[in-house]
Amino acid sequence: MSTDHTHHATSTGHTDHLAYDAATVGALASASIDIFDTTLRDGSQQEGLSLTVDDKLRVAEQLDYLGVRYIEGGWPGANPKDDEFFKRAPHELKLDHATLVAFGSTRHPGAKAEEDQVLRHLVDADTEEVCIVAKASSIQVKKALRTTLEEGIAMAYDSVSYLVSRGLRVFFDAEHFFDGYLANPKFSLAVLKAAEEAGASTLVLCDTNGGMLPSQIDSIVREVKSRSGIQIGIHCHNDTGCAVANSIAAVQAGVTHVQGCVNGYGERTGNADLTSVIPDLNLKLKIDTIPADRLERVTSVSHHIAELVNIPPRPQQPYVGSAAFAHKAGLHTSAIARMRDAYEHINPELVGNGTRFVVSEMAGRSTLVLQAERLGLSLDSNAVAKAIEQLKRLEHMGYHFETADGSLELLLRKAAGWKQEFYRVESYRVMSDHIPVSSRGVTMDGAEAAEFAFTDPNEHTANYESTEATVKVLIDGERIIATAEGNGPVNALDAALRKAIGGHYPELRCIHLVDYRVRVLNSAKGTASATRVLIDTTDGTRVWTTMGVSENIIEASWQALDDSIICGLLAASDKLDRTDEECS
Amino acid sequence: MSTDHTHHATSTGHTDHLAYDAATVGALASASIDIFDTTLRDGSQQEGLSLTVDDKLRVAEQLDYLGVRYIEGGWPGANPKDDEFFKRAPHELKLDHATLVAFGSTRHPGAKAEEDQVLRHLVDADTEEVCIVAKASSIQVKKALRTTLEEGIAMAYDSVSYLVSRGLRVFFDAEHFFDGYLANPKFSLAVLKAAEEAGASTLVLCDTNGGMLPSQIDSIVREVKSRSGIQIGIHCHNDTGCAVANSIAAVQAGVTHVQGCVNGYGERTGNADLTSVIPDLNLKLKIDTIPADRLERVTSVSHHIAELVNIPPRPQQPYVGSAAFAHKAGLHTSAIARMRDAYEHINPELVGNGTRFVVSEMAGRSTLVLQAERLGLSLDSNAVAKAIEQLKRLEHMGYHFETADGSLELLLRKAAGWKQEFYRVESYRVMSDHIPVSSRGVTMDGAEAAEFAFTDPNEHTANYESTEATVKVLIDGERIIATAEGNGPVNALDAALRKAIGGHYPELRCIHLVDYRVRVLNSAKGTASATRVLIDTTDGTRVWTTMGVSENIIEASWQALDDSIICGLLAASDKLDRTDEECS
Repeated sequence: MSTDHTHHATSTGHTDHLAYDAATVGALASASIDIFDTTLRDGSQQEGLSLTVDDKLRVAEQLDYLGVRYIEGGWPGANPKDDEFFKRAPHELKLDHATLVAFGSTRHPGAKAEEDQVLRHLVDADTEEVCIVAKASSIQVKKALRTTLEEGIAMAYDSVSYLVSRGLRVFFDAEHFFDGYLANPKFSLAVLKAAEEAGASTLVLCDTNGGMLPSQIDSIVREVKSRSGIQIGIHCHNDTGCAVANSIAAVQAGVTHVQGCVNGYGERTGNADLTSVIPDLNLKLKIDTIPADRLERVTSVSHHIAELVNIPPRPQQPYVGSAAFAHKAGLHTSAIARMRDAYEHINPELVGNGTRFVVSEMAGRSTLVLQAERLGLSLDSNAVAKAIEQLKRLEHMGYHFETADGSLELLLRKAAGWKQEFYRVESYRVMSDHIPVSSRGVTMDGAEAAEFAFTDPNEHTANYESTEATVKVLIDGERIIATAEGNGPVNALDAALRKAIGGHYPELRCIHLVDYRVRVLNSAKGTASATRVLIDTTDGTRVWTTMGVSENIIEASWQALDDSIICGLLAASDKLDRTDEECS
Repeated sequence: MSTDHTHHATSTGHTDHLAYDAATVGALASASIDIFDTTLRDGSQQEGLSLTVDDKLRVAEQLDYLGVRYIEGGWPGANPKDDEFFKRAPHELKLDHATLVAFGSTRHPGAKAEEDQVLRHLVDADTEEVCIVAKASSIQVKKALRTTLEEGIAMAYDSVSYLVSRGLRVFFDAEHFFDGYLANPKFSLAVLKAAEEAGASTLVLCDTNGGMLPSQIDSIVREVKSRSGIQIGIHCHNDTGCAVANSIAAVQAGVTHVQGCVNGYGERTGNADLTSVIPDLNLKLKIDTIPADRLERVTSVSHHIAELVNIPPRPQQPYVGSAAFAHKAGLHTSAIARMRDAYEHINPELVGNGTRFVVSEMAGRSTLVLQAERLGLSLDSNAVAKAIEQLKRLEHMGYHFETADGSLELLLRKAAGWKQEFYRVESYRVMSDHIPVSSRGVTMDGAEAAEFAFTDPNEHTANYESTEATVKVLIDGERIIATAEGNGPVNALDAALRKAIGGHYPELRCIHLVDYRVRVLNSAKGTASATRVLIDTTDGTRVWTTMGVSENIIEASWQALDDSIICGLLAASDKLDRTDEECS
């Protein structure tokens, strides 16, 4: 592995002193890699990840929008969800770039391929391509399948033959290939040879247990490449923390088909994260993967899929994370002021991400002043000192301004002498009543209700509950009391506050809460822990985040809610003429 | 890089078909790597991570317990926290294995080393070893430092010389080394040469922007190794998703000093994660890092530090994550039943972790039956069918039983015909009142209070608040009503429930809530989103987790609380003789 150290300037404005020159990777530079996404199959083995058929269809749309070549949709026959997915996909999915692949395994030991249920389900899924898994490790064949090595090879040969005879293109996942090769290379290579002779289109080498390092992948892939005439692929898991590097090492050793999952979902430590693999190959090695003009979609697709699978995106995720180009250290921010790419390995816009400066107690004066300027505020040195002192005091209590731009804006405005005069809060109250009866509207006394509830011992959801909030405010000397119900304490407080002040501020109609997050701080204190609440709010054009901290979750939520409404009223004050139609 | 394919059996019971034979790595096998942890310096640049001096001292204790060679404690002079840390450390830290290192930079351009503030602070920190950073990239020296290349080299030489003359051992962090080398190798090598000639003990090559791939690290490190006579080190960031692999590639190319952070904390995408680097080197390459008998501490240290820095551990983290050896797919669990290491790359006990089977709608009958057996329950096929149906229905609503063993136990018991007869709940109520006055106990009416509160416009914390809960229960036909206060709705409910039933169940004294977590599901619905609450409870010997889901956070918390107490009473029913002294 030799490197070419030629300096190469790009048109992005970033000094591209990191990328290999195209000549470095030689023949590879002209090669193109098939990206095979298995989020819907292997990815959904992740603990905590559970997808409905609708979710799966929406994830597939996102993968197609990103431009991967293959989408492995699931295992027909293994569960009703995956059956339904393959039935609905042809009608409901308009794939513009990707091809759907059905997954299965080889025939059972001792069975005939043409009579085997697993293979029949694969044929019935009615895709043009299928992927089947076969054990390519002698130990696994003997111990886990409990059959002979000869039968292990025959299972691979027969299954591929049969599927090819039915007109299907076959990807052959050689499970446990690397472990198997290290223990008994002859057998593992024989399994590959059987699949190749039976007509498989691609031999995918799987590091099923994820225990490999890049140097091992490199030498073993080169060995396989030298013996095979068809396309070789790679499938890595992250158990050594090297799934991305292993996939890249395999490409550098000659594979042209890479399997992985968006966001690195998958069993145990996950599969190779395609949101790193794709930009690494495209930007660092200049190898084509997805269409070049779609690379900038990778950040939004990553976040969209995270939302669909309901797992919060990891801020530290390379390329696509919210912190991937965020700068906090004073040393770094001051250098970046002089040289935009001082601490960025690529122009973040290439992957649809952006540079961010983080405000925190560590950031110091310069970042705070920069933020104030962005808001059109000029802070004198006295106000800056006051703001920094406030920031430090509140962060010590558990506030974290780097995630709450709205609350930071209010803190800076207050430091500059501003007072909010929209409304003043006299008091607020929440009452929440719960009676565990089995159906709303049944009249019975509490004891009867409790008895009735326990006729089904699995039900302890309170079926009668009522939560209301009362808010008392002062606006221009007028005292207003409003009470509203909600389906929880925060929802009720939101409704009551809007009811109380909505008459004076009709622009509130345009302001909606879009996200609500709770984080328990010092959770070791149990139910007496402090909680931090973050609320995202939008007026249809921009989104702001506000924050509250208290041991009482109602109080913490109120602070975030109060700040969120005040930020909205501030933003709205220059566009009071907006009509209702303009509210989204 | 050639591999030796010798099969190697270990005494762990796992077939060690993955590890390289010691002979493979040749000379490296006898080498030992110095692990240099920078969690307290570079790691604390992570967005969302903020440590008090007490936190820093406790993190250092954990790092020492793990057995790293060096702990970089911070940058004396950069902020008061780090000054205080270096003042208190010699008195309060009893380091048994590690050495504390102070961090700083070279002298300023044009300054004299002996008069430079930065270097003076380093000397004053009174450690035996220091680490200084110098820019080893010609572009950075010209654009970010705005000085000449000659002065860049002189800054490195003078600073190292001065520190060595003061009796200090100097680690030399060559910042932007790899980027610099690719653009202008002559300058970057000249900086290293200056530091070596001035007496540095170690030249640490930094991939500051994290843009490298392992193949680049390999060739550049080999080049540096061939030109230098002193120890070479590596410092990687994870911007390509390859920080761990890059660190390992550097070791394979000859470095013997590896910098990184426990859990991969750090600016942007983080530093190399030592919880992967250390086991990769020890277990895969048989290279010594921390003392061999401490490797099994890595999981607990990882989790303990995550708690100290207050960032939830990532379940998918290699080696140490709670999911790193968790199995969910039916295919995998059935294979593991036959062959324990079928889907595990190492014996998890080697790193202090363990195998887990995940119960979910995907797991099917076998896992559920296994769980029931562990609880001593025998479920007939009717009960299994009922449990699976319940599980699927509740998981569809947002419950997630794989994380809540306590609630799962109750579900299985109920499916087997059990009814809980400890107490029955008639109703419960929460009331929470908040008045924003500035100090508790001041008597004024609401309007006065509101006016008063606004004298400091930065304060909107309600300083008068009162939250109480009333619980009505039936025990053996007796109706009990209890009211209690708390510092939030859940705390008040907990107190009221204990007050109501504590007279009948004195064993409750031994049962304590230890953790409370909230997750907002479908957060796009704002404050009307469903929330999932998890509560961890202990009786001093074991910990169980229970769960509730509802749009109303009070209801969700109640469900988890109710389950938590019932699980505790169930567990206590066979040890009613415990005295108070036995409660922890």
